[in-house]
Amino acid sequence: MSTYTAEIDVRFRDIDAMGHVNNAVYATYLEQARTEYFRDVLDADLSRVSTVLASLSLDFRRPVELTDGTVAVDVDVAELGRSSVAMTHELRAGDAVVTEAEATLVSLDPDTGEPAPIPPAFRERMASYHGL
Amino acid sequence: MSTYTAEIDVRFRDIDAMGHVNNAVYATYLEQARTEYFRDVLDADLSRVSTVLASLSLDFRRPVELTDGTVAVDVDVAELGRSSVAMTHELRAGDAVVTEAEATLVSLDPDTGEPAPIPPAFRERMASYHGL
Amino acid sequence: MSTYTAEIDVRFRDIDAMGHVNNAVYATYLEQARTEYFRDVLDADLSRVSTVLASLSLDFRRPVELTDGTVAVDVDVAELGRSSVAMTHELRAGDAVVTEAEATLVSLDPDTGEPAPIPPAFRERMASYHGL
Amino acid sequence: MSTYTAEIDVRFRDIDAMGHVNNAVYATYLEQARTEYFRDVLDADLSRVSTVLASLSLDFRRPVELTDGTVAVDVDVAELGRSSVAMTHELRAGDAVVTEAEATLVSLDPDTGEPAPIPPAFRERMASYHGL
Repeated sequence: MSTYTAEIDVRFRDIDAMGHVNNAVYATYLEQARTEYFRDVLDADLSRVSTVLASLSLDFRRPVELTDGTVAVDVDVAELGRSSVAMTHELRAGDAVVTEAEATLVSLDPDTGEPAPIPPAFRERMASYHGL
Repeated sequence: MSTYTAEIDVRFRDIDAMGHVNNAVYATYLEQARTEYFRDVLDADLSRVSTVLASLSLDFRRPVELTDGTVAVDVDVAELGRSSVAMTHELRAGDAVVTEAEATLVSLDPDTGEPAPIPPAFRERMASYHGL
Repeated sequence: MSTYTAEIDVRFRDIDAMGHVNNAVYATYLEQARTEYFRDVLDADLSRVSTVLASLSLDFRRPVELTDGTVAVDVDVAELGRSSVAMTHELRAGDAVVTEAEATLVSLDPDTGEPAPIPPAFRERMASYHGL
Repeated sequence: MSTYTAEIDVRFRDIDAMGHVNNAVYATYLEQARTEYFRDVLDADLSRVSTVLASLSLDFRRPVELTDGTVAVDVDVAELGRSSVAMTHELRAGDAVVTEAEATLVSLDPDTGEPAPIPPAFRERMASYHGL
């Protein structure tokens, strides 16, 4: 089973008044990892796919600082449903796990906005990549 | 029992390529609501208090658009522990609930970085405000 | 001659590691003021109008802090050309001018992407509002 | 004469409702390039140095899209004054110049907040790196 990993460069602007990467920025790191996962694994452009983020949860373990340089974001598929995908994420700076996260994506019918089956091509690529 | 509510103006910059408020921006709206709650209810500056966000979860119900103008963010205290506070949040645009969220804040000893009792003044103000 | 003014709430997330509103956020404040100006003065949605920002310059006079609460952003029209508008901006926190800025907007032909005459309705509303 | 160049990854979150990198994000790209320039050329941490951005001007030539992947940001020193440095920047996506920019940094006395001579070590490193 493969885990997809995106490497995100920490920016000065990601740091807040507390001197650490701001909590909202982790959601941006996850979104960027999904963007690269859609591009690399699904051969798709996240911004043109009829998919929404239904839920997101984050457990912060340790702060990240600018000097950490990059954050590695793992993308795993915990559950591949009919119209939804539950992804689990580990975010690491160096050897340390800094945040653990889960995200649920839902495939929508672009006309009705209602949940729709995940496109077969996406399902096959995810199953193949992660060995599901 | 009182619920604290912050009104946040939606900015053009909050909107992403999908035409909706970006998912990470909800974490910023919640942070802004906490900032105003600390200022108004606890008479404290969130950026100078030794408190960290330990976890955050968001359930997205409905997208928000720029034309919604403002988002109301409720702050309730679900559980007031020894060193942690579990807050529940409802975010509304007009009459619609757009997102529901939970956040856990942990009070830290500024010297050791370890969990520490919530300052008595904060505990009293929260208990009094929310009727706990 | 009237000056249009937008009031922008400073967010915790606008503050950077130096403890002040980050320099890039001033561009966001200006964009938000333009958004409100388009809505209120031109009766138009900035995100649906074929207009681009061609240039932007900012002179930073004084830092803004979270405790300043709000920033007032003035919008004036310094020059109303055939296809471009030069806007001048003063940003204030309390009584202090914190930043002065200029922005040039260019109207584009949505088909060719080339500069095009400013729509007559916009020209009339700007001339009328600012007494040009 | 050497030009310093930073490579910045474009994020999904950098894109706005128009489908392009938002204008304020260019200021963030420049700030990130300065951060790396201070680290690599001056052996200094921008967030701990008593330096402020006094002015910034941007000329937008061409939009940047997510599929451009990265933006190269050049850092040149146009003028090395007693207490200020005028930097010029070219931002490129692929072979195209997308934005040209100028920024003025001013060294401050950390105690008085008044302009102060640029530290000799910084002056020497800049002069040496850029062949001034």
